[in-house]
Amino acid sequence: MELNGVTIDDTYAEAFPTWIARVIITAVTEEWAYKAAVEATGFATSAIGCPCEAGIETFLSGDETPDCRPGCAILICASGKKKLKEQLIERIGECILTAPTTAVFDGLPDAEERIPVKLHFFGDGYEYQAEVGGRSVWKIPIMNGEFVGEEEFGAVKGVAGGNFFVMGENQMAALMGAQAAVDAINGVCGVITSFPGGIVASGSKVGSTKYKFMSASTNEKYCPTLRERVEGSEVPEGVGAVYEIVIDGLDEEAVSEAMAEGIRAATTVPGVVYITAGNFGGNLGPFKINLSDIL
Amino acid sequence: MELNGVTIDDTYAEAFPTWIARVIITAVTEEWAYKAAVEATGFATSAIGCPCEAGIETFLSGDETPDCRPGCAILICASGKKKLKEQLIERIGECILTAPTTAVFDGLPDAEERIPVKLHFFGDGYEYQAEVGGRSVWKIPIMNGEFVGEEEFGAVKGVAGGNFFVMGENQMAALMGAQAAVDAINGVCGVITSFPGGIVASGSKVGSTKYKFMSASTNEKYCPTLRERVEGSEVPEGVGAVYEIVIDGLDEEAVSEAMAEGIRAATTVPGVVYITAGNFGGNLGPFKINLSDIL
Amino acid sequence: MELNGVTIDDTYAEAFPTWIARVIITAVTEEWAYKAAVEATGFATSAIGCPCEAGIETFLSGDETPDCRPGCAILICASGKKKLKEQLIERIGECILTAPTTAVFDGLPDAEERIPVKLHFFGDGYEYQAEVGGRSVWKIPIMNGEFVGEEEFGAVKGVAGGNFFVMGENQMAALMGAQAAVDAINGVCGVITSFPGGIVASGSKVGSTKYKFMSASTNEKYCPTLRERVEGSEVPEGVGAVYEIVIDGLDEEAVSEAMAEGIRAATTVPGVVYITAGNFGGNLGPFKINLSDIL
Amino acid sequence: MELNGVTIDDTYAEAFPTWIARVIITAVTEEWAYKAAVEATGFATSAIGCPCEAGIETFLSGDETPDCRPGCAILICASGKKKLKEQLIERIGECILTAPTTAVFDGLPDAEERIPVKLHFFGDGYEYQAEVGGRSVWKIPIMNGEFVGEEEFGAVKGVAGGNFFVMGENQMAALMGAQAAVDAINGVCGVITSFPGGIVASGSKVGSTKYKFMSASTNEKYCPTLRERVEGSEVPEGVGAVYEIVIDGLDEEAVSEAMAEGIRAATTVPGVVYITAGNFGGNLGPFKINLSDIL
Repeated sequence: MELNGVTIDDTYAEAFPTWIARVIITAVTEEWAYKAAVEATGFATSAIGCPCEAGIETFLSGDETPDCRPGCAILICASGKKKLKEQLIERIGECILTAPTTAVFDGLPDAEERIPVKLHFFGDGYEYQAEVGGRSVWKIPIMNGEFVGEEEFGAVKGVAGGNFFVMGENQMAALMGAQAAVDAINGVCGVITSFPGGIVASGSKVGSTKYKFMSASTNEKYCPTLRERVEGSEVPEGVGAVYEIVIDGLDEEAVSEAMAEGIRAATTVPGVVYITAGNFGGNLGPFKINLSDIL
Repeated sequence: MELNGVTIDDTYAEAFPTWIARVIITAVTEEWAYKAAVEATGFATSAIGCPCEAGIETFLSGDETPDCRPGCAILICASGKKKLKEQLIERIGECILTAPTTAVFDGLPDAEERIPVKLHFFGDGYEYQAEVGGRSVWKIPIMNGEFVGEEEFGAVKGVAGGNFFVMGENQMAALMGAQAAVDAINGVCGVITSFPGGIVASGSKVGSTKYKFMSASTNEKYCPTLRERVEGSEVPEGVGAVYEIVIDGLDEEAVSEAMAEGIRAATTVPGVVYITAGNFGGNLGPFKINLSDIL
Repeated sequence: MELNGVTIDDTYAEAFPTWIARVIITAVTEEWAYKAAVEATGFATSAIGCPCEAGIETFLSGDETPDCRPGCAILICASGKKKLKEQLIERIGECILTAPTTAVFDGLPDAEERIPVKLHFFGDGYEYQAEVGGRSVWKIPIMNGEFVGEEEFGAVKGVAGGNFFVMGENQMAALMGAQAAVDAINGVCGVITSFPGGIVASGSKVGSTKYKFMSASTNEKYCPTLRERVEGSEVPEGVGAVYEIVIDGLDEEAVSEAMAEGIRAATTVPGVVYITAGNFGGNLGPFKINLSDIL
Repeated sequence: MELNGVTIDDTYAEAFPTWIARVIITAVTEEWAYKAAVEATGFATSAIGCPCEAGIETFLSGDETPDCRPGCAILICASGKKKLKEQLIERIGECILTAPTTAVFDGLPDAEERIPVKLHFFGDGYEYQAEVGGRSVWKIPIMNGEFVGEEEFGAVKGVAGGNFFVMGENQMAALMGAQAAVDAINGVCGVITSFPGGIVASGSKVGSTKYKFMSASTNEKYCPTLRERVEGSEVPEGVGAVYEIVIDGLDEEAVSEAMAEGIRAATTVPGVVYITAGNFGGNLGPFKINLSDIL
């Protein structure tokens, strides 16, 4: 099919289950919540080499947070609950508790699965329990006043690895197409794009043909400079660069919507010529999201 | 002493040795280098709970980089060389190699200590060696073209934990004083402030009096809300909030200069009333930086 | 009344009619639309000394714009229709048409009052008419491709000068209170805050007591440093600084909602102690917005 | 000649004299100085339709400003001294005096030509003279405290209209090339790029062939979509989009350096294929800046 003159490949994205927690960070202003969120979601592009995948899901106004202050919701994703708990503890403890004026609240209060994150021990006995906006919290005396935090976070089984590929005539066209896609995905609730700026420049395949000790290596079939050298290149003629957008989300619907919005946006950028998606033949991931179904 | 009407405590910051690498990230524009740098330096506030300490040291113009493109220099700090190597590999591999249009170069080419970071295996045999701006690099075919990277990074023994405390009449005065300090420190070469927005809201002491399993807990002597409850509170009368600025740097001179510039800036902010620094009695860290000496 | 422990004065804001146009700017990415919007709404704080009042009302996703690209809506406000037309022509012509990848569309298609903005003459005969998203537009060949623009903009009689004052213990508390208010108002549709960062540091009174040639001068009754020197100071004891938030909007409802959201947000900031509003005794402006009614 | 594989046209930019003032804005933090600077330099792309040309020249650290606070220097350019004075008064009075925590200082204290900007009348008699950092200033009581400002600004005869054109294979390549150029120019002292984001998408010629009432119209010889339709098109084969960078600066050296840095940066962006400059045959402007001389 075609969209805005751009060919959409007849294929699907193959995605995987992941455990996800949603942490609401509030602060005195949106900017300070954002700074904490940026730190807390860094070094979290891919579970292959990072301890988790994480990103900012959405900004929240004071109407939408327990303490009526502006904030951000971040998603933290890990393949197992134990890893998720560890990352919640470390990232909240090191990157949010330490940040000016912040508070944290559970962003999935209805989730059945509950993960304890016992920050209050940091208070060394000076901490006390209180209620804020209907939430049971601990108040911990710290240098800038009192830190307010919930200690139990909901977790749900979500979807990791929703994706599509933006191909352009040249590198800058593909990059701006990918950027437009990320802009659009930022408006979709329940999803994140965990890579730098939301964009992957170096998609990988599982393992390596030459270096057996590598768990992942460059996906040569999608490398434009190797188009003439590798058999079965997936780079269409006239394509100079490829970017992948990888999406994690709370459920398949959210990931599908994000893929659709992102693809639509990418096709409005001049020089974007082809959109496809990544899969492993359908044998690995339980989620198969067809591009033609969602558009 | 007094500076701009603000009392400067007659004390010193106690700091520690750390291994530091300096990574130059370039990209097609400053913005894309910055996005990669933000991801690569996230989740890196304190070595207590994060895998390393990291931050953006400075922006670089095309005149200052090997490939004549704009960029950022980041510092990555770890207590041991092994940990530093591991973090270099993971953060460059997951957060910079994956980012659009980036290249990486060693930012300490004169350092004797060299750390190998063998990214080229990602190329699965399609990679090749080349020279860029006098540097020996690998070019790795990836989806957005070719990634260019050096594979050996200099490391030096630097200084971690340079610090000072900004105390204000109330929380907002202290916060803006801390922000002004961070602005000033951003202009000093060779240093980073690794906490969110460069500021620590919840300084800690070693261990915990009540919870023996905690390796660190709130520094109650610096908590304004506990001023009347704890013995020996270090919070002067009239102080409503305290922020700490923690500085890591390539050497003691850079850290001292950053402390001086930061303190001077903080004292220009109305409502900032007192500046002090943190130490452990001088028994732990080999570096003792006196506030009165540097100002 | 009190809100979050902050006293809300029993008074009202007095506001005035103004003509308003709403211009939708789209671009290849949100960032490029934003850059054009910033330029087009600059030098537009107050109709007293600027040619108009202007600001960014909201960001728009591709779902909300005629050409399916991301964008911004800006409001341009002037007391008369002739002035509004002149400012539309100059600001669209000089600041949007000149900006990379932009298009402009009317943001008030249902308004009865229509203002012609004949940009197509810039095309020197090479321009042509077309339809984009149901809008009749001109396409003008320019250096970066073709500029797409509507040439008729709706105008409505809106409300200028909705306002409230944020008073704090000291300058930084008041400033962050004002900033939190602006954050909240940014989430309200149909309004702008035209001053730098949305905040007024130097509210004025009509005319001058000493310098008869001045049409406006400092509002000494709201100057904290003059509290003891002027008769009838409106600065309560314990207030160290005052900021005014001035709101222009499409109708009284939008302005009232923005005032309410802004005031609520300001009261969550520690050190904010008093909120009031500005009026002229009720004789000048037809709109009187009571703080107690809207909260 | 060629630079990084990009053809540099053998031509020159023709530039014109202009009067320039340099205003230093300081504030409690860099961010607040920046917000004031953005407002004060808005609606100031081209003297053709805006009241002046203006932009942010550079950021300043506390070491570089009279009151030891962080700041920005902006340049305001007008063809005549009377217009420059009017714009200084209005832009400082409406956009800087009104902004939180700001102060203003003359950025050209050595210039012989002096322009009075009597802000102190705003104080209505409550203002008083003082000295800050060796500068004679007025302190004006305002709502957020006291505004500090010098009242005399140096003016020099500078250079307006230094320029070059970035041509790319397609729109996104040309845009990113232009962006890279602006990044580089931002690092050069003494210059501004007054257009939105520093970039012109719709370069113009003097007058209009078809519409005699127009003082400027599209420069059809540089419009890629008209390449086959107009005689003497200056768009080389293979060029899909053109952006112009226009530079104003304090002297010819600064403008030349900015042009050189900008061009060098643009040539590092993949898909940029041709660089040229705009002139009027050399009969209009006294400054002729050869691309081959400066590179």
